Amino acid sequence: MLDLRPVGYVIGLLTAVLGVTMIIPMAVDLAYANGHWQAFGQSALITGLGGGFMALACANGVQRRLSLQQTFLLATGVWMVLPLFGALPFYFGATGARVVDAVFEAMSGLTTTGATVFIGLDDFPAGLLLWRSMLQWFGGVGIIVVAMVFLPELRVGGMQIFRSEGFDTGGKVLPRAAQIAAQIMAIYVALTIACGLAYVAVGMTGFEAVNHAMTTIATGGFSTSDASFGLFQGAPEYVSSFFMVVAALPFVRYVQLVAGSARPLWQDAQVRGFLWTLAVLIAVIWAYRVFVRADSILHALREAVFNVTSIITGTGYASADYQLWGPFSIVLFFFIGLIGGCAGSTCCSVKIFRYQLLIAAVSAQIRRIHSPNGVFAPRYAGQPVTDEVLSSVMSFLGLFVVSLGLIAVSLALTGLDFTTSISGAATAIANIGPGLGEIIGPAGNFAAINDLAKWILTGAMLLGRLELLVVLVLFLPRFWRA
Amino acid sequence: MLDLRPVGYVIGLLTAVLGVTMIIPMAVDLAYANGHWQAFGQSALITGLGGGFMALACANGVQRRLSLQQTFLLATGVWMVLPLFGALPFYFGATGARVVDAVFEAMSGLTTTGATVFIGLDDFPAGLLLWRSMLQWFGGVGIIVVAMVFLPELRVGGMQIFRSEGFDTGGKVLPRAAQIAAQIMAIYVALTIACGLAYVAVGMTGFEAVNHAMTTIATGGFSTSDASFGLFQGAPEYVSSFFMVVAALPFVRYVQLVAGSARPLWQDAQVRGFLWTLAVLIAVIWAYRVFVRADSILHALREAVFNVTSIITGTGYASADYQLWGPFSIVLFFFIGLIGGCAGSTCCSVKIFRYQLLIAAVSAQIRRIHSPNGVFAPRYAGQPVTDEVLSSVMSFLGLFVVSLGLIAVSLALTGLDFTTSISGAATAIANIGPGLGEIIGPAGNFAAINDLAKWILTGAMLLGRLELLVVLVLFLPRFWRA
Ligand SMILES: [K+]
Ligand SMILES: [K+]
Repeated sequence: MLDLRPVGYVIGLLTAVLGVTMIIPMAVDLAYANGHWQAFGQSALITGLGGGFMALACANGVQRRLSLQQTFLLATGVWMVLPLFGALPFYFGATGARVVDAVFEAMSGLTTTGATVFIGLDDFPAGLLLWRSMLQWFGGVGIIVVAMVFLPELRVGGMQIFRSEGFDTGGKVLPRAAQIAAQIMAIYVALTIACGLAYVAVGMTGFEAVNHAMTTIATGGFSTSDASFGLFQGAPEYVSSFFMVVAALPFVRYVQLVAGSARPLWQDAQVRGFLWTLAVLIAVIWAYRVFVRADSILHALREAVFNVTSIITGTGYASADYQLWGPFSIVLFFFIGLIGGCAGSTCCSVKIFRYQLLIAAVSAQIRRIHSPNGVFAPRYAGQPVTDEVLSSVMSFLGLFVVSLGLIAVSLALTGLDFTTSISGAATAIANIGPGLGEIIGPAGNFAAINDLAKWILTGAMLLGRLELLVVLVLFLPRFWRA
Repeated sequence: MLDLRPVGYVIGLLTAVLGVTMIIPMAVDLAYANGHWQAFGQSALITGLGGGFMALACANGVQRRLSLQQTFLLATGVWMVLPLFGALPFYFGATGARVVDAVFEAMSGLTTTGATVFIGLDDFPAGLLLWRSMLQWFGGVGIIVVAMVFLPELRVGGMQIFRSEGFDTGGKVLPRAAQIAAQIMAIYVALTIACGLAYVAVGMTGFEAVNHAMTTIATGGFSTSDASFGLFQGAPEYVSSFFMVVAALPFVRYVQLVAGSARPLWQDAQVRGFLWTLAVLIAVIWAYRVFVRADSILHALREAVFNVTSIITGTGYASADYQLWGPFSIVLFFFIGLIGGCAGSTCCSVKIFRYQLLIAAVSAQIRRIHSPNGVFAPRYAGQPVTDEVLSSVMSFLGLFVVSLGLIAVSLALTGLDFTTSISGAATAIANIGPGLGEIIGPAGNFAAINDLAKWILTGAMLLGRLELLVVLVLFLPRFWRA
């Protein structure tokens, strides 16, 4: 019998902490004297007590080691339970949201997706806007820890190639997680402060800067305005682009950088691959805008830099409706969203290292053409790639495409059109934010779609955020066997 | 220096044979006394002489063995040269087609894609209709031979798992190809005749039966009418479905069946996987039509059987515009097209065995959860799958998605909309035929799209038909190094 108590204990603790953090937006709403603080009071009470009781109830089963089964359950459990409690302020608060909308928004926050069902953000109580940003900020740091500690351990999606990077836990996932989390958290906080100060320097108000700094470093994409980044044209777009790129690189390199070693960052195969890809895509979109669409050089450059960075990192801010840039941009942006940033960052989607492994596999095959009897293992970052890694990367790619297809088909079954179904499935599973089309496009909003579709998308965000297999194994009877 | 003569010799011979076969439609047009026979006379002369001279010019370099480089060049060369000559009757004939349209149609024929740029098929000279069907029929048998002899040898896309099935050539590709081709050809002819007789039995004219029998067994999808299979509602749809399924199974099993052994067919993992997938999809579409769209039980069953079979086998006949069945059907049919039939048949697309290998890889990963220190190789059809196979299947899946994306982006750059670009790329690379949307949907036609898009699609058909890598390696400088 699978012992659920160690899992429940950690989830309970994290839930209780989430409840405590609700005091921050409560204080903000108290300071603004808008009466909205009570929604946070209620939510904090329920969340804090709920989490506390869960932890207490499970405390007698705490172990130093988690089995692999328990580790899988923990990762999925955290992202299933926390959104339910994180949704309470939307349910009790000024939005008076129905359950489906509140949970969608909280899941979109904690998975750093950034799709929103709310309209009229500009008039929201400050505390509620802050809460949305905080959800993304928590989700961002949470996923870095998961990607660096849990996924290599679970050998999911090829992430085990990052085990050798000093993050081998020797099975002691929890103590190691705490240690790594502390280092990462310090860097995460420092980057957020730097980003916020930079935003203030280019003209944002303090409140806007705090919120956007949190959702930038989390590559989350929630904004304080219905117009998203449309309010902050010009210098803020460059500042934002810089920090989105920073947030898309592997955070372990920053730990090493702080320890005095810059070389691992510059020589990281993912970092190089990501920056090159980004540069090429910006150049392509920029050239298209200047030479085909006759836009001015600087305006086109700014919009290309910001929007390409926003979509490839999966942040999902929009400063312009790129659907108006012609079909080429629309289709290109769709596929840019399927690239993603580096593993070990806050980014989601397929991620750059999987494309690099793909290139390595193709390259190994081509070498075999010239030497049919030679043995050529694909190599990544100078190391041969084991067949176990290849097999799990293949699982990831296959599951990604198949899941995307099934989600799109399910969305279509609820009545959404082809473009909305396909792009909605992609934006949810890749945790980007905006889709395509009039409804959920960069100028649109998820408010108008039906409830069933919202639930499907909520599930898709969870699935994508946890690299698919972490969630999918839970549906297999074989997983539950002792 | 790569010796191109053995490659040129085979291509020349095949071209000369293609020229000789043009005498058949010429004879038909002579019999109908419509004066159109001269177009075939000219084409036959140019093709026969062109091929003959090419073979002669290369005859002094003929070898018994081809190097891997030469084998790659041969496969791609055949599908690049033959469509150019096969296009001549469209250029000289009643269609008076421009070069781009003639080549598109011939490529669509020889790759068994079945997308057409011609409107008014019902009034075409009989010889020209027959020529379109013949192109698909040649392409179909050609691809079976390539899939059974060349691809396992080239170790492309995981096809090497079929090497053990009695098709190991020991490097002597050409003599073995001739032997296999003879057996396959006999079965191919027999199936075509059976299909044609069945079509006559359910009411087609002799001419319609001959044409549709050829394009059914080739899973090609060209028809003799603009209405495609809309003219043959009822029993012909069931007959057609049966033979499309037959054409989608591995032809090597028929060779064994004729030799008296039926077990390999029934026990083939691909066959079982394909038939189950087909049955489930038919049931889903049928249930949707009956329960959600309130269609009658038998009408819904017939349309579900025919259209699902047509798309999953990549045949691409349309008996109804399934775009009118609601968004669920549209999105589902899009993804059904990405499944495909069995390797070693006339089908294209991703193919069922790659999904089975994917499931095997996922399954191996899940077994590791319970026994973290165990070694679990994915297994296919009872055999462990080598890492070389996994690596090349991964290359295929990755290249398929990336190519589809790049083709879609290129199509969008020519001005096509999102749905047309994405579905056009998919239908071309998977050699299905119809796309989605008003322009290229099942009720549409490729005549209206721009020339650049037609060239891109022509390239995409070639790329998809040869499992991507066979064509793509030719673009690598490394391939050409001695
Ligand atoms: K996002
Ligand atoms: K076809």
